[in-house]
Amino acid sequence: MIIVMKSDAATEQIAAVAEHLEGLGATARVSTGSVRTVIGVVGDLDGVRSVAWDVLPGVERVMSVTGPLRFVSREAQHDGTVIEVGGLRIGGGTLTVIAGPCAVEDRDQLLEAGKAVKAAGAHILRGDAYKPRTSPYAFQGLGKEGLELLAEAREVLGMPFVAEVIDPRDVGLVSSYADIVRIGSRNMANFPLLQEVGRQQKPVQLKRGFTSTIDEWLNAAEYIYNEGNHQIILVERGIRTFETAARNTLDITAVPIAQSLSHLPVFVDPSHASGKRSLVPPLTRAAVAVGADGIMVDVHPHPESALVDGSQALEPAEFSELMEDVRRLAEAVGRELA
Amino acid sequence: MIIVMKSDAATEQIAAVAEHLEGLGATARVSTGSVRTVIGVVGDLDGVRSVAWDVLPGVERVMSVTGPLRFVSREAQHDGTVIEVGGLRIGGGTLTVIAGPCAVEDRDQLLEAGKAVKAAGAHILRGDAYKPRTSPYAFQGLGKEGLELLAEAREVLGMPFVAEVIDPRDVGLVSSYADIVRIGSRNMANFPLLQEVGRQQKPVQLKRGFTSTIDEWLNAAEYIYNEGNHQIILVERGIRTFETAARNTLDITAVPIAQSLSHLPVFVDPSHASGKRSLVPPLTRAAVAVGADGIMVDVHPHPESALVDGSQALEPAEFSELMEDVRRLAEAVGRELA
Amino acid sequence: MIIVMKSDAATEQIAAVAEHLEGLGATARVSTGSVRTVIGVVGDLDGVRSVAWDVLPGVERVMSVTGPLRFVSREAQHDGTVIEVGGLRIGGGTLTVIAGPCAVEDRDQLLEAGKAVKAAGAHILRGDAYKPRTSPYAFQGLGKEGLELLAEAREVLGMPFVAEVIDPRDVGLVSSYADIVRIGSRNMANFPLLQEVGRQQKPVQLKRGFTSTIDEWLNAAEYIYNEGNHQIILVERGIRTFETAARNTLDITAVPIAQSLSHLPVFVDPSHASGKRSLVPPLTRAAVAVGADGIMVDVHPHPESALVDGSQALEPAEFSELMEDVRRLAEAVGRELA
Amino acid sequence: MIIVMKSDAATEQIAAVAEHLEGLGATARVSTGSVRTVIGVVGDLDGVRSVAWDVLPGVERVMSVTGPLRFVSREAQHDGTVIEVGGLRIGGGTLTVIAGPCAVEDRDQLLEAGKAVKAAGAHILRGDAYKPRTSPYAFQGLGKEGLELLAEAREVLGMPFVAEVIDPRDVGLVSSYADIVRIGSRNMANFPLLQEVGRQQKPVQLKRGFTSTIDEWLNAAEYIYNEGNHQIILVERGIRTFETAARNTLDITAVPIAQSLSHLPVFVDPSHASGKRSLVPPLTRAAVAVGADGIMVDVHPHPESALVDGSQALEPAEFSELMEDVRRLAEAVGRELA
Repeated sequence: MIIVMKSDAATEQIAAVAEHLEGLGATARVSTGSVRTVIGVVGDLDGVRSVAWDVLPGVERVMSVTGPLRFVSREAQHDGTVIEVGGLRIGGGTLTVIAGPCAVEDRDQLLEAGKAVKAAGAHILRGDAYKPRTSPYAFQGLGKEGLELLAEAREVLGMPFVAEVIDPRDVGLVSSYADIVRIGSRNMANFPLLQEVGRQQKPVQLKRGFTSTIDEWLNAAEYIYNEGNHQIILVERGIRTFETAARNTLDITAVPIAQSLSHLPVFVDPSHASGKRSLVPPLTRAAVAVGADGIMVDVHPHPESALVDGSQALEPAEFSELMEDVRRLAEAVGRELA
Repeated sequence: MIIVMKSDAATEQIAAVAEHLEGLGATARVSTGSVRTVIGVVGDLDGVRSVAWDVLPGVERVMSVTGPLRFVSREAQHDGTVIEVGGLRIGGGTLTVIAGPCAVEDRDQLLEAGKAVKAAGAHILRGDAYKPRTSPYAFQGLGKEGLELLAEAREVLGMPFVAEVIDPRDVGLVSSYADIVRIGSRNMANFPLLQEVGRQQKPVQLKRGFTSTIDEWLNAAEYIYNEGNHQIILVERGIRTFETAARNTLDITAVPIAQSLSHLPVFVDPSHASGKRSLVPPLTRAAVAVGADGIMVDVHPHPESALVDGSQALEPAEFSELMEDVRRLAEAVGRELA
Repeated sequence: MIIVMKSDAATEQIAAVAEHLEGLGATARVSTGSVRTVIGVVGDLDGVRSVAWDVLPGVERVMSVTGPLRFVSREAQHDGTVIEVGGLRIGGGTLTVIAGPCAVEDRDQLLEAGKAVKAAGAHILRGDAYKPRTSPYAFQGLGKEGLELLAEAREVLGMPFVAEVIDPRDVGLVSSYADIVRIGSRNMANFPLLQEVGRQQKPVQLKRGFTSTIDEWLNAAEYIYNEGNHQIILVERGIRTFETAARNTLDITAVPIAQSLSHLPVFVDPSHASGKRSLVPPLTRAAVAVGADGIMVDVHPHPESALVDGSQALEPAEFSELMEDVRRLAEAVGRELA
Repeated sequence: MIIVMKSDAATEQIAAVAEHLEGLGATARVSTGSVRTVIGVVGDLDGVRSVAWDVLPGVERVMSVTGPLRFVSREAQHDGTVIEVGGLRIGGGTLTVIAGPCAVEDRDQLLEAGKAVKAAGAHILRGDAYKPRTSPYAFQGLGKEGLELLAEAREVLGMPFVAEVIDPRDVGLVSSYADIVRIGSRNMANFPLLQEVGRQQKPVQLKRGFTSTIDEWLNAAEYIYNEGNHQIILVERGIRTFETAARNTLDITAVPIAQSLSHLPVFVDPSHASGKRSLVPPLTRAAVAVGADGIMVDVHPHPESALVDGSQALEPAEFSELMEDVRRLAEAVGRELA
């Protein structure tokens, strides 16, 4: 941590800050330049971090050098995390494909979608039973019945599934059915929910909040890890910017950044990022080429009548064609399809 | 709702969209211009809204004219909502001042802050027992013990208090103590939490998500209202933008916009918006002048040792001085201090 | 400047950076913490700044402590700049009101608007002869004829005027007519234009780019100052964010921040910030209360037929009423109307 | 265009708007729904667009269905534009690679970089003689001398070059040397400059403003096209968002969007988007896979001593290796390297 003093800070003010630091068990390295004094802080920062240094007389601002991450950073673990789900290896140089409808609507819809994505080569089925919706009057998901349909689809298709959880009170229920539980974008900073999924043992998909920095995203992963669950998959799904031509702006750069800062696998969701069917194939191709560890794509047998996000769903034939591109690109960048 | 067809849409495609609309009980008004055809949709839109019209052949995009709000809009209720709390009237031309520490730390801190803000003229005490923090290693609040200290402060000071709730499982507990329960910025789209606070009868402060549009904010209020709780106070607290000179960018324009779109009172929190003590007085002045129905200000007896957000807390003497400005400005804009 | 080394940086890498610094005439203060080494750089930074330190082996990133501003910062000049225009004093505790049409359209429009704003108490007339427009097919201004009409209005009304310049080749012409020349928001980073206005001697209004940081804004002022023109007025006019309910998001916080970082006066343009007539009065009130040194408001005798930005123009009667509020609020915050 | 009336608009107000429209030669299609009336406007919109309809009594807002683009849209020209430069075909299914130093510093640097990128397979050399810099104290380019060095490099290497122009007074000079002239990101809305490059006949690279919407970008291209120059190359180079982990956020989605809205070729500049060397290879791969018509990459023989943007420059060997990936990915997505 660095404490930058004001250019007119008095000698006693500088000394007072240094003394305060030493009193908290840290070491203050005072460095006086031509314009101002800067104090480098080394040693144990736990006590130091919580002090509002910038309200002390003479202090201009505080700059953080090292974040508070303990577990999910590359510095904490050099090798990439590999997660095993139903015989699949997620991470470690593989490319995992998740596909299926945004929301479970009924048995026919789910099985039709599931068979199509399985046939096209997807590894994991997606389909949600609980949906966070901006309006209280929009379809909110089938709840437990949706989970039962997903479990049935798993049996029929022989593929694991991932499902979202939005309420800490439902974590036990969802994780008793799903192979992977998902924290959606709106809940990335829902800390009680993060802690709850951290206390059960199914792998967790953690979507980046569409208005969260990469740093906040990794701190959210730290919440889960810190509770004991180390099987975390990060998912970039677009951020909110001034541009409104697509629903969100896919932050493709976040993939290599998150991979360099953390040992956790990083996926991309091109469907929720763009919100538009015609953009999903090019963004999927970009995601594979940029080096994502996996992709997650909405596929619906009848997008026009989908109850949620039909505008972004591929039809089965489109998905099947896209998978051809995915295979070629994965090979071109040296990724092995699971 | 307006459906804009592609410039090369075929006559049959236009007819198919119109037919689909009529089949859902809506009326299609087809209007053909020199470049493209536009279809106005009138009648009952409930069934129409959930269809992904833009995936139908020939459709370019859909434009929404009226949002799905039923209760919290000005069109639903012309007169401003007035909320009564402990003899105070919030809204209806008054200016309400909430002040106190960001988080309850201990009895001395809370009472010292409470006495100071009461003496300076604040109407309601703030102080949180549950804090959502970016890092799992930061102070998370005293929990139930904090609520008990707040209840004690209410007795000693004779002023009501507001406290945040971050977990749907704690809503009963928090609302059994607090006079007003708060949904924080990170939880504005935590729909299970919104529904829970909608089902109890204490007034609710709903902070705008720092990355939420005004439209999403009003829809979040609609979630609460729709569950039966009509006593909702909106709080603008800054949004996330590219500018990093302050913690967030106070969206002062959101105050008159929200007041024109909704009948609910709108407050401003200049402390969390700026994150910096020296900016709180000018932003408070701006908030009163823009016509906010209330302000909420962090005050701490010893900001430098605050466990949460000390950088933005005013000292009691600063707050007392600021209240002089608040009174003068409230008078200048015709607001009555409660 | 601080150079943060990677946690696994080798001793020789640290030494190489330090040596490189010393070779450029700076002093390296190496500080080794438990996780990583940090190198503080003091002394002459001119040569140091242009090196891409982060591409040297072992370097993680570079943090800047002091910006490159030499003239416009508060550190360079403690007392606020006061600018004299036609007997008016801008800055130094006064509140200056600029008003008039966005664009000069014809003699009648300009004089009608000018008489109205003069009668209501405005000090300076606005009216542009050159308009930067998003579409090449929109009205681009009257050019030289507009300047002549403005000069005529100055004679008739006895008030100075400000007009925008958008082309470095027109700076001589515009400054030969106008009392203050304006750099618009889109041209804040048009460096040849900044240099040109810096080389003439009329005061310059420098609008903040709607997507520029406060730091970039001050650097743009530095461009002008560095050419010899020290009479610069900063104008906050809203920034681009994700919120689309108003044209831009007025960054009211930028006013006290810019005033603390720089000695230059800071104005607010609530008309261009909001783009909407009904929002102009509350934002003007907020601007006065936050402590702006001046405001600039669009007034048009017939907003519905304005050729540019009619949606944001006040009618004369509205402006006259608003000036009553401005006077009361200026008094409440201790500002003296010129 | 659609005019949305307020829910309480009077019948006479609706009639007045319709009458006003008809008076301007447009046709008003009035459609009354259960909540409000909407007026569709068809016919000639040129006169209609400039009216501030939302200030008329009873009008809530105006929604635009068709933008004002006349030439650069796909609707105006279905087939993609192909531009020929020195025997190369840009657009039309090819992938063009531009590479070289950000700024020309001296003959050795330029030739060393140029030989390296030529050997690795780049088609066009980049190197700027005029640089827009945030600070007036940063290196601003060699000016005319830089152009002469570039012309010399063209002779030596046998490859065309692109160079930026930042001042309308320099357009003649720059275009007399360069094979392609570039409008940089900060100048995308510098309309006099756009018009000047539109009046000469060298192809123009138009970078997207880092804070401009895709719609504004296409309107900027329209400025150039409207002056008579139809050879325009769009370049996506990242936008400004709240995320600060990279210099900008590469808007990869803008590539397929711009390609669908316009017939002009679309390139990607991963170097300026990220500002960081380690991110350039993955972003380049993503750009090729997403379907860009070209890429532009900074390469410098000695990045650490570059006078501009050294942090983002690849070394020759890195670029050479990256070109291997580019070839494989281009083949995988069916693009032909020129």
